Amino acid sequence: MPIQHTVVFRLVHPAGSDEEQAFLVTGRATLTSIPGVADFTIRRQVSAKSDLTHQFSMVFANQDAYDAYNAHPAHTAFVAERWIPEVTEFQEYDFVE
Amino acid sequence: MPIQHTVVFRLVHPAGSDEEQAFLVTGRATLTSIPGVADFTIRRQVSAKSDLTHQFSMVFANQDAYDAYNAHPAHTAFVAERWIPEVTEFQEYDFVE
Repeated sequence: MPIQHTVVFRLVHPAGSDEEQAFLVTGRATLTSIPGVADFTIRRQVSAKSDLTHQFSMVFANQDAYDAYNAHPAHTAFVAERWIPEVTEFQEYDFVE
Repeated sequence: MPIQHTVVFRLVHPAGSDEEQAFLVTGRATLTSIPGVADFTIRRQVSAKSDLTHQFSMVFANQDAYDAYNAHPAHTAFVAERWIPEVTEFQEYDFVE
């Protein structure tokens, strides 16, 4: 069963900054390089009812693909080197039909 | 610019109950009857990192369509009569490209 993995987040960087853009570009390049990641999107969160500002979304064909992504060194390095220092608040959700 | 309006939520009803099913069926029927609502989906939220359990998602072609939905009597009645009494926790997010 396909799983849509999403995370809604806010960066430490100012909106429109070069640092924000660099994070998004690196995130896309890094995460889409991992096997099993499909339909990767970056979107802006614009509801005033949340102070989170961006969403990463990707689809895995099944739980095995999701588990492999979580354990992949490109993913764990991105989390350690970019996500933890540059993301100030986030919430994960995973959706299935 | 299209806007994906989403709400992730948890019901007061037990998982798998008739009351849960009735809420979801009525929600779909009511909200899809409102002009401007496209691509309506109901999905389950399965990440252990959130205790919310369902998502409603719909797409509006633009802000005017979204505003008309918010003000539509079928929407405001659903919120008053079903959402407020039956939803115990929720978070809205709206996404744009």
